[in-house]
Amino acid sequence: MIASTPEPPYFVVIFSSQRTAGDAGYGAMADRMVELASAQPGFLGVESARDAEGFGITVSYWRDEAAIAAWKAHAEHAEARRLGRERWYGAFQLRICRVEREYGMGGR
Amino acid sequence: MIASTPEPPYFVVIFSSQRTAGDAGYGAMADRMVELASAQPGFLGVESARDAEGFGITVSYWRDEAAIAAWKAHAEHAEARRLGRERWYGAFQLRICRVEREYGMGGR
Repeated sequence: MIASTPEPPYFVVIFSSQRTAGDAGYGAMADRMVELASAQPGFLGVESARDAEGFGITVSYWRDEAAIAAWKAHAEHAEARRLGRERWYGAFQLRICRVEREYGMGGR
Repeated sequence: MIASTPEPPYFVVIFSSQRTAGDAGYGAMADRMVELASAQPGFLGVESARDAEGFGITVSYWRDEAAIAAWKAHAEHAEARRLGRERWYGAFQLRICRVEREYGMGGR
C-alpha cells in the first residue's frame, strides 16, 4: 500500500535485501518490527514489496534523521538486525535519504 | 539484485505502484524502460521488487537531479508514463530523494 506522507522534506530509509531460504522466524519478526516502528516518534509510514525470488525493498518514512537514529537504537530492533545479519539475509543495503519532492496518482 | 552505487551523495527516484490486473504490454515496456534508463548519462543502477498482489517498488539511482530531469524528458519514457497512468497503474507515488549515507552486507 502506498504510504500517505506529508509535504517534503522528510527522510526515508531504503532497505534492499535478499532473503535466505525458509522462514526461520522471519515473518513474525518482520510484522513485529512494522508494529514497533509505527509506534516510534517521527514515523511517517512504510511500504514494502518482496518478489518470488526473495528480493525485497522496504522503504520507511521519517520526520527527521533523529527519528531514524532513535529507531536504530531501539533494543528489540537491534536484536532483530543481529538476527537478520546472522540468519535472514544473504545480502542487504540500507540507504538513508532526504525526500526532496514527490507526486503521484490515486491511492492516498 | 542490489545495485552497486558510488559513495553518497547521489540521487534516487522511489517509484511505488499498484498494478492493474493483466499484462496489457506492461512487461515488455518495463524491460524496455530499464534498458533505456541504463543507457542514460548519470544512471547509476536500479532495484525492483513486486509482490504477488501487484504492489511494487522500483528505486533508480542517479548521479544528480539533472540526470533525473533528462530521463523524465526522454520521449519514449514520456509515452510509457502516459500509458502507465492510463492502463498499468491503479495508483503510484514517485519520490525524488538525495542519498545521504549507506551501509550494507554482502552482494555488491
